[in-house]
Order: sequence, then C-alpha cells, then structure tokens
Amino acid sequence: MPQDKQTNRRIVLASRPQGAPTGANFRMETEHRPAPASGQILLRTVWLSLDPYMRGRMSDAPSYVAPVQINEVMSAGTVAVVEQSAHDDYQPGDWVVSQNGWQDFALSDGKDLFKLSGPVLKHPSWALGMLGMTGFTAYMGLLDIGNPQPGETVVVAAATGAVGSIVGQIAKLKGCYVVGIAGGAEKCRYAEAVLGFDRCLDHRSADLAASLKRYCRDGIDIYFESVGGQVFNAVLPLMNTRGRIPVCGLIADYNRTEKSSAPDQLAQFQSAILRKRLRVQGFIINQDYGHRFGEFFRQMSQWVAEDRFIFREDIVEGLDNAPETFIGMLEGKNFGKVLVKVAGDKP
Amino acid sequence: MPQDKQTNRRIVLASRPQGAPTGANFRMETEHRPAPASGQILLRTVWLSLDPYMRGRMSDAPSYVAPVQINEVMSAGTVAVVEQSAHDDYQPGDWVVSQNGWQDFALSDGKDLFKLSGPVLKHPSWALGMLGMTGFTAYMGLLDIGNPQPGETVVVAAATGAVGSIVGQIAKLKGCYVVGIAGGAEKCRYAEAVLGFDRCLDHRSADLAASLKRYCRDGIDIYFESVGGQVFNAVLPLMNTRGRIPVCGLIADYNRTEKSSAPDQLAQFQSAILRKRLRVQGFIINQDYGHRFGEFFRQMSQWVAEDRFIFREDIVEGLDNAPETFIGMLEGKNFGKVLVKVAGDKP
Repeated sequence: MPQDKQTNRRIVLASRPQGAPTGANFRMETEHRPAPASGQILLRTVWLSLDPYMRGRMSDAPSYVAPVQINEVMSAGTVAVVEQSAHDDYQPGDWVVSQNGWQDFALSDGKDLFKLSGPVLKHPSWALGMLGMTGFTAYMGLLDIGNPQPGETVVVAAATGAVGSIVGQIAKLKGCYVVGIAGGAEKCRYAEAVLGFDRCLDHRSADLAASLKRYCRDGIDIYFESVGGQVFNAVLPLMNTRGRIPVCGLIADYNRTEKSSAPDQLAQFQSAILRKRLRVQGFIINQDYGHRFGEFFRQMSQWVAEDRFIFREDIVEGLDNAPETFIGMLEGKNFGKVLVKVAGDKP
Repeated sequence: MPQDKQTNRRIVLASRPQGAPTGANFRMETEHRPAPASGQILLRTVWLSLDPYMRGRMSDAPSYVAPVQINEVMSAGTVAVVEQSAHDDYQPGDWVVSQNGWQDFALSDGKDLFKLSGPVLKHPSWALGMLGMTGFTAYMGLLDIGNPQPGETVVVAAATGAVGSIVGQIAKLKGCYVVGIAGGAEKCRYAEAVLGFDRCLDHRSADLAASLKRYCRDGIDIYFESVGGQVFNAVLPLMNTRGRIPVCGLIADYNRTEKSSAPDQLAQFQSAILRKRLRVQGFIINQDYGHRFGEFFRQMSQWVAEDRFIFREDIVEGLDNAPETFIGMLEGKNFGKVLVKVAGDKP
C-alpha cells in the first residue's frame, strides 16, 4: 500500500518485546489524514530514519526518554515536506527535519523543526545521516569527548554503520590511525577500501582480542563505543593511559533478556578506569549537545561540499517494511545508514 | 630505636603480599648515613605520609607507576629537613616536601623537591595533607572532574579520610549538599558535627543502599570514588543524569585476591553510563594535574589561612611503627590523615 493523500498510515507499538522485537510487536493502522489548525503545519513523511536507540523506546525500563506507549506511533526522526501550512513561517513544499514517527502525516506547531535549505536539498536524506543526528553523534562524541590527536589510535565499533563510518572518517581527517570493527568480511573490506580506515576487523573472527591487539600495536587511545558486549571486552585491555571512551550506544545489550552468567567484570573495569586514568562518558546527542548543532552543521556541510566523506545509505522502500527492516538492523543485517523511503519526493 | 645522626634506618619490601599485607612483607635495615656528593643534598625525614596507593606499589601487577622492587625502600612522600647541602639552592635547615620513602635519610639532586616557606612552616605536616598531595587530589578531582554546582548532591566515600574530608569541605564551600560515607558511628558523628557534612552514613549499616537513598532524596550528582565495592554498588542506582564520578582510588579492592562470585554487573554499569550520560574518570594527581599544583596551592593556602578547613591528622610516632600503621589503614583503622613522625622537628 503506497502513500496516498487522503489516508494516514501509522505503525504503532502493539506490545513490548521480550528480547528481540518481532513483527507482532508492531501494528499498522490507517486513519483519515489530519488537517492543520491555525498555527499548525501538516507534514508529509518522505524519509524515515531507523536507529538502534528506538529499541530502548519500545521498553518501559527506566531510560533517558519516555518510552513509546502501547498503541502509540513509533517515534522517529523524519525528513518531510510541508503539505499544508497554517503557519506564517512555512510554505507548502518546504523541506524539514521533523519527528513524525513511523507514519505518513503528522501535524506540527513549527517548533523543533529544522528547515532544509542550500546544498542539502540535493540529497535531503543526508539530513538524517551525515548532516543529521547520526553525523552529529559521531562528530561530538569523537571531537568533544574523544579529543583525538594526530597519531593516536582510534577504534570504532559498528564501523560501517551510520555513526561509526563518520567517526572513522573524521578521525582520519584528524590524522589518527583508525581501526574499525564490523560484522563480516564484506563490511571490513568496504571500511578499508572505500571509507579509508587503516584496518577493519570482523567481530566474528575466532580470536577477537588477539586480532585487535595485532591491529593496535600502540594500544588504543579512543574507543568510540556503540556496541558493548564482547567487543568492549576485547578493547578494554588495550586501552592506553588517559584513553577516552565516548559511549553513544550498547546495541549488543538492547535485546538481552538474561543477565550475564560470566564472572563479575565490574571490578576489572573500575580498576582499568583508575589505573589507566580513563575517561568514560555516555552522551545522548540532542540532550547533551543540542546547543552546538549549528557548529556541527556548518563544519560538516563544508566537509561534505568538499567531498571529504563517503556515506552509504541502506534504503528500503515503503512504510510497510519498517518493522522488518528495524528488526534486521538490530541483528546487524544493514549495511550503512538505514532509511525507509516512505514516499516519492514529488508533491 | 629513634633516629640518630649516624645511621640510616630503612624499611624495605621483603616480599609481595598475597591479599592484605602483613608485617612479614616488610624488613627494617640499617646502614651508615649517606653523604652528599657535589650538587646533592642530604635530607632527614621528619614526617612520613602513609597512603592507600602504596598498596599498589607492593604488587607487580601492571599499574600506573613502577612497583617497588623486592629489597628496595618503600616509596612515600615525606617532609624533610636539609641536613647537609652541596647544592647552591638549598641550605641546612630548609624544609622540603620530598620522596624519601620509608627511611631516615635520603640524597637528592634538588629536582622534584618543593621548598616550604611562609605559613605552612608553622605546621609542616600539612604539606603532606591538605596543602599537599591529598588536598590536591581532593581539589582537582572534585573541581575539575566533578565541577560541582550549588545545590547539587555530592557523596564522598571515606569521608573522614585525608582526601574525603577535604572533598566534602570544598563541596560545602561550593554550596553543595554533602553526604559522607564512613566506617563507624564515631566517624559519622565527626563528619557531621565537626567537618560540617550534611549527613554521614556508616557503610557497615544493615541496608546501605536504602539508607543512602533516604539521605539523597534528590539523587546524586557527584560521587567522589576512592573505595569501590559495596559502596559503589549502593551509589550507582542513585546517580542522576549527567552525574560525574571522579575515581582516585578503589581501596576496597586493593587487598582482594579472589574474583567476585557475584553476577556480572559490568553491563549494568555500562548501561547506567549510557542512560544517565555519566562521566566516569580516573586520575592520578601528579601525572594528570602536576602542572596545576601552583593554582591549587595558592587557593588552598588562602582557605587554610582563613580557617575554612578542619584537617585531622592520625599521627604515629616512630619509623618502626610504619608497617603496622599502614596495614591498619588499609583496614580503615585510621581516623584522619595517616602520618608517621619519624623524628623531632629540631635539627
């Protein structure tokens, strides 16, 4: 069922997942397209961003943002076109970054929209990728918390993903030696040959810790963490004195239902933090760095204009396919930034 | 055996401890007093500082500084008097902070000495305490990593110890609500009544986590970590969003020989770092902040001159007693900054 102008398709949270989400946790509904009241805008979703953090919003465990409620539309960042406007600042045909969620249409009061203009209009989906939240996450986590210096070793988990691929490329611009960790030989070849990482290691390799050590002969100065689990365990012993670990995600844990049966490693982590004087810092990009978006956007736009970055998009057509695509992404089946093309670009 | 002018008594590391150190890990030796060559100074130890970090130097596990070697003098910060000088910058009778270690006399080339002058000469041992390494640790960990804001809740482990007592008092100066954790009712009363902490909790109380929660109704913004173990486990669930955890020590772990048999809590810690966007940072005061000692010393000297601080010293007379005193300190038997008075102040 494609997008039409009379109907709003919406994908709601039908039930909370236990462990990995399944199709049964989602339900597609249709309703009549809403109409904007005075001061409102009707937005039509063109691009829908799927990101690992959404798994957290499906649970009602304490988290940094309120969970999606049962029967509520799944939340998501979107690139949308203004379909109707009763707001002085917006005209039909304007492109914006918005939080429509997993649906065709959404009303907005114009607050918290980011209007697209200039070169990004040639490629509006980039406003959800390297020029949007994922690029912003890479930029601030690496530069503000990581503070990379020329010659330092930077290890990036999920190296070909939306965030990791940008982290590694910025680190290369800063003169670092960059080692990626990715799932499978194809992604690793891509990280080295296309993204320009110095090395990339398959996290499925037999002895991850030993291989990583061979690749990081001078230890690790910055580990950009988005994964956790076994990758973290391989990284920690290699961290150098005064190393930095920005933490933007822990995808290996998101679907976990049972506590680990491994021996307690908390004390080893604490001891490493002390002995190596590590700085470990979690961040949530919009809450912690929202006030610096302009700085990021100017710098990144310039780099993009200079063709400094490769950014691979893994595009799926049709809103119906969002649940299955999201489930696959949590298993690492995607290759690049995951986007759902909900509708054509033309009005 | 008191100090005499002909003999150097030295306490060396006889063997490496398994778990808690015992008297058998130390050995006192005597030798003839050394004589300074040209460009050297002979220092006579008056005050010897005993600090938990020394436990780490007794082991040969990888650490941030080289371990003490077997048959080598135990290392330590000292306040000393220049006994003889063949160095242009030092005169007999000058007071310095030095690294003599656990012995009566040591030679120095004058580098890495800090000459005492002005008001601190009225109380030279303070140069090992609130005006020395311990005060410096408290000051930089709290102010630089912790960055306390008025009204925030600061929790301090080892609250009546050399570092913790200063952390809490600086936090009060900065307008924070300060909760100490200490061992026993007497120390807790002291922290509240004398040091001016808002509350202090006995870490031996039956339900540490529940009690701490009652004392920290608005959660915890800064936890100054020097203990680890059960205290950390009680603190972590109460940490607020954007909380900070400076880590200067983990005394609960230093004597541990077996790995914890508890379920693995690493993932919970990682998850808390991400969800709460915590900053957890280890530091070793001289390596990380040595270049800012002057800034600390000026500010702290001013506060001390204004009588802003209470600083309790737990003084033991006689070098012979250093091993037993050190062993007791690791068990929490001290009450305040542990110092050995090795000799009289008079030349």
